[in-house]
Formats: sequence, C-alpha cells, structure tokens
Amino acid sequence: MIIGFQGVPGSYSEQALIAYFGNKQETEHFQEFEDVFVALENDKIKYGVLPLENSTTGSITKNFDLLKKYSYYIVGETSIKIEHHLLGLKGATTDNMTQIYSHPQGFEQCSEYLKKFPNTQQVAYHNTAISAKYVKESNNLTYAAIGSKRAGQLYGLEILASNISDASENVTRFIVVSKTLETSADCNKMTLVYNLPHVSGSLNSILNLFATESINLLKIESRPVGNGSFSYYFYVDIEGNLEDKNVQRALTSVENATENFKLLGCYKANI
Amino acid sequence: MIIGFQGVPGSYSEQALIAYFGNKQETEHFQEFEDVFVALENDKIKYGVLPLENSTTGSITKNFDLLKKYSYYIVGETSIKIEHHLLGLKGATTDNMTQIYSHPQGFEQCSEYLKKFPNTQQVAYHNTAISAKYVKESNNLTYAAIGSKRAGQLYGLEILASNISDASENVTRFIVVSKTLETSADCNKMTLVYNLPHVSGSLNSILNLFATESINLLKIESRPVGNGSFSYYFYVDIEGNLEDKNVQRALTSVENATENFKLLGCYKANI
Repeated sequence: MIIGFQGVPGSYSEQALIAYFGNKQETEHFQEFEDVFVALENDKIKYGVLPLENSTTGSITKNFDLLKKYSYYIVGETSIKIEHHLLGLKGATTDNMTQIYSHPQGFEQCSEYLKKFPNTQQVAYHNTAISAKYVKESNNLTYAAIGSKRAGQLYGLEILASNISDASENVTRFIVVSKTLETSADCNKMTLVYNLPHVSGSLNSILNLFATESINLLKIESRPVGNGSFSYYFYVDIEGNLEDKNVQRALTSVENATENFKLLGCYKANI
Repeated sequence: MIIGFQGVPGSYSEQALIAYFGNKQETEHFQEFEDVFVALENDKIKYGVLPLENSTTGSITKNFDLLKKYSYYIVGETSIKIEHHLLGLKGATTDNMTQIYSHPQGFEQCSEYLKKFPNTQQVAYHNTAISAKYVKESNNLTYAAIGSKRAGQLYGLEILASNISDASENVTRFIVVSKTLETSADCNKMTLVYNLPHVSGSLNSILNLFATESINLLKIESRPVGNGSFSYYFYVDIEGNLEDKNVQRALTSVENATENFKLLGCYKANI
C-alpha cells in the first residue's frame, strides 16, 4: 500500500502523513495537489494526504475544488502545528537577502515578518521544502527560504530567523483522501457539497433542513461555481454518522432540494 | 476628495475605481491592501477601492480580515471583468521564458495555461500592473508578466498570449470602503461579521435568527479567528436595509447571541 502527498520529503504534508499513518509506510510524493488525485485515479496510491485548512490563513481552496472535481472521499483528518523559519546557507544573513523562496501560503502566514524586507523579491514555489532544496542547490548566500526546521535539516540549511509566522499558534488540518468511501461506526463527522437552486432564500432553507433534524453544522465553506457569476458550491461539515436515522433523512431532503449534491465522506474528527 | 486603491495605474483595482467613481477623481495608489486602510485612518483618502471576491478563485480573504481589523464600512460595490494576458517586451516569445511575474491571484487564475511552462519560475508580486512595469524596466526578453491589456499598453509591453485565464468568464467584485457608515433608502444589501459562542449548534441557531425574520442570506464566508484553533469569524451578506423593522429585530437578536458582532455596511448591491 502506497500513500501519496504533495511536496517533497521535509514538507508539512509529509509530517501529516507520518502523524496519521506512522513512518513505516511506503510513500510517494507529487509536485501538484492535483497529481495526488491523478495518482488515486490510476491506482498508483491507496490514499492521498492533502492540506485543507490553516488556522491563520483559512481554507486551502484548491483542494476543496479538487475534491469536487474528482468526486473522491475524505476518510480521515489530522492536524499539524506549522512552525515557519527563515532558512539559508551557512554564512548567509538577512542583511543582503535578494530573494526569498516559499509556497504562497508561507509568504501569507509570515506577512508581518516579511514587511521588514520590502526590497527582497518573493518567489512563489510549489512547496516550502522544495524552496529549501532550491536555496541549497543555488549555493547563493543572498537567497533564503521559508520552511520547517525539518526541511532545513534535510537540505542542509541554517535557521536565519526562527518562528516567523504572524500567529504564535499556526495549525494546518490535513485530510486523507481515498477513491472509495470508507466509514465505520465510530465516525462522527461528515462532509457534503452541493450548489443551490436559483431561488431567493435557498441558502436559508437548505440549512434549515439540517436544523430540522437536530444536526449540528461545524463549518460552511463556499466556493465559486466558476461561470463568472457569484454563485457558489457549499461545502458543509456536519456532526453525525451515515447510520444515524436523522442524518439519513436530512441527506435525502438536502439532496432533493439542491443541485450536484455529493457526500464527500464520513470520518473520525481529529478533535 | 481623494480615492485610494491598491496597485499602480493599469491595475484592475484602478479600473474598478473608474467604473464606480468615473475618471475625473483625484486618486492615490498604495502598495499593500492594508496601506489603503491606513490612508483612510489618517484621513488621507475619503474612500478606498479593494477587491473582495473573484468568480474563479473565490474570496480575497486578506481584505475580509482587514475590514474586521479596522472596523470600517462597505459603502458600495462594483464588478469588473478580468481578462489576463501574458505580456512581454517586443520580440519576446514564450519559447525561452525564464520568469513570469504576477500577483499570486494571477498565477492561480491562469494555472491551467501555466502548466505548459513547468520550468518557468513564477515570481509573486504585489500587483499584476507592477509586474508589467517590472518586466518593462528589466528589459529582459526572457521575462513575462500576467496582467491586463491596459497594463500592457501603459507600460509598453506586447501581448504574447491573450485571454489565458482558466475560466472564460472571470469577474472580480470590488468594494468601496469608508471610515464612516454611509447608507440610504435605496440600499438593499448588508454585511455583518461575528463569531460564535463555543456551544454546540450555535452555527445553526444564529442562522435561524435571520430565517425567523424572513431575511434572505446571500453569502456566508468563514475566516479563522487565528488563535490556532479552527473557530471562525462569519461574514454574512443579507438582503435588506437598516430601516427595515425585520432587519432591526434580527440584528439585535444576532448581536445578543454572538461575540464581536459588527455591522460592516448597508449599501446598494451591484446586480
């Protein structure tokens, strides 16, 4: 059984994979989030581990869009504490830094710290760990990367400045994605996606279908349908299990009242 | 009266400003979204024009966070059709392109097109128009920028590839922000923000307060509180006017049932 993640060894996604599956698993890493879905599609991997939400910057919206596009299932979740450091070659300093490499989320999560360097170019890379690797390979003392301590160690970089995130507590929630629905009696969280019919009041009336069955809403995420209008797909997290009678009734009502309804998984909440 | 926007002449934000206020206004441009809020705070500008949402990539979450941080008001909105082009110097081609400059949203909105160039470095800049300006100044035939036709014209770049957005229809909604609440009888849309008390079922019960007063919900956006937990501020758009009795009753109930409740404006919907 092979488990996939986006990034390279040393990435936060790999940390999440190890936290969920342990470190004895065979893994394969991919450059883009979508490559993980393609690998699931081609049965190259059994599960994929992907970031879905950060406690400072919010949702990683690309993965919401991909979940819907591929119609695959969330079968588990785990959270990892993110600690960003500024990494550079031995002997490098921030004084004559010309370029910083990181994932766009790395820049966003450290935006306060980065204000100190208005003239340093920020170069967006696929992954914080790939950024660290690039800086090492460049052998350029004026380059730096934003990434984890582990990425620094793996690629032989020093910490030029530690804990540079805007928020002192910075956590990313990762999901485990499978091609098939996997659920069990101890699962207590479900994710659904649908879009609304074009009638006034439909946002209220659909949410009311959950309330009628006393189902607790945990999160609502809206993503644009993408046709140039401001209509949305709604991703809704609820408390419950597929075997619960009230959940079954609510799902039937919501499916009948919405368009493109899909169950995206029934899994065990991390908290 | 001076009106502020983020970016430089040729940016989509400037286009939105002109669409809303006309082209006779005195304007001032700023590097960061937050600089626009600071200029409002210091009374350097009367209004600020900021992007809030794109029909392909979704919310510009930074501006949701800044609205809450500064407690200023939305007094109007307008939408602009975004048409991204690949811009370069006269004589440049995509064949030997080494670097592409754009705002991270530019990269995200053109991600399908950019897959053709896996080895070209993507450099994140503050603004699509600043990217075009930089490419012009670099005088480097291997550099390109993603930006508007107008940015290309202003900074003397050619279109190397036209309409490279993933979505054929790509629209950004901009808001007009003021330090003071401005509303009138013909305003029909309101934005509120609050966070939920830590009790099970609070997401449902608060939304139900709107339904009780027959108030139509237009959009719900959740943003992390930022303390490392997955709790959220909710930004809710509703139909209505501050003078409506049902709106007044609902606002009182919601304010009493939530934390950090704030009215973020009552304005005229663009559509």
